[in-house]
Order: sequence, then structure tokens, then C-alpha cells
Amino acid sequence: MDFRDSLELKYKDMLTHYLMDPNERILYQGQKLSRKLIEFNIAPEEVVSLHKSIISDSDWSKKELIDSFDILLEVMIGYGFAYREHQSLRVQQL
Amino acid sequence: MDFRDSLELKYKDMLTHYLMDPNERILYQGQKLSRKLIEFNIAPEEVVSLHKSIISDSDWSKKELIDSFDILLEVMIGYGFAYREHQSLRVQQL
Repeated sequence: MDFRDSLELKYKDMLTHYLMDPNERILYQGQKLSRKLIEFNIAPEEVVSLHKSIISDSDWSKKELIDSFDILLEVMIGYGFAYREHQSLRVQQL
Repeated sequence: MDFRDSLELKYKDMLTHYLMDPNERILYQGQKLSRKLIEFNIAPEEVVSLHKSIISDSDWSKKELIDSFDILLEVMIGYGFAYREHQSLRVQQL
């Protein structure tokens, strides 16, 4: 199983657990996952696409769909951070 | 009205129009908006947060919530592109 396949399972598992019991620990896992995603060159739009695909196949309520954004947000914070870091490194190099 | 305030209105308007009539033209507007967002240093997590806030306040159905991801996806494609561009520029500079 390559990283992309395991990512799908891991991300779905994270969302499911978060919706059953929303807590900081799982949000922190989301932060850690985002570092891994960036390391494996997974684009941010791939995460949004994966998120859409998981919620499309789910039987989650509208409230749960909205709550699931908390995990997506944590992952995106990682991308935002990496992006700003790249920007500041570039400015230093110019 | 500063860019952040007008962004909120513009993004909401884009989502509303897309859900009433999903078409390529609005998806293309999403692409254009992402370039503007990057130019104004809006972080990707701010867009996810804005998306969440708009759908939380909406009376959209579950299907509409899922469809609204198409716009978020277009915007994130822009961030992914900008991020890869920065990466390749850095590699060239090293």
C-alpha cells in the first residue's frame, strides 16, 4: 500500500474519530499529517478533493459535514505555514 | 471596504451562483480569485475557514454542501500551483 492509499484510510479514520469525539488530540494529528503530506508532495487541492470524496460517500449529517472542516482546517494551516516559510526563504535569497 | 470584507461577499456570491447554476464559468472565476488571494497574502486556511463559516450560516442541503467543494477545489488548485512554483524557483536558486 503506497502513501496515497494509506493517506485515504488515515484521513477518513481521523475524520470519523473526530466526529465521534471532537478533541484537540485529533486536531493535533491533523497538524502532524499535514507535515507528512507536504513531505510527500501531496498538493493542497488533493486533500480538498479527498475530503470531498469521503464526505460524499458518508452518511454524515449536515452538522457533521460542517464539523469535519475542523480537520481540513488543521491540515491547511500546515500548507499555509509551509508556503509562508518558502516565501520568506526566497526573500532572504534574493 | 477592504479586500478581506469584499472577499467574503465575493466568495459567498460565487458559491451561491454556482449552486444555483453549476458551470465552468464560475469555476474559472474561482481560479481567478485564487490568484488575487495569493497576491493579497490570504492563507489557504483562511479560505477553508471562510468556506466553513459560509456553509454554517447557510440553509444549503447536504448535496449543496458537497457541491460547494468544487469552488474550494478550484481556489486550492491556485495555492497548489503557487506553492509548486515557489518550490521550483528555490531549487533553481540553490
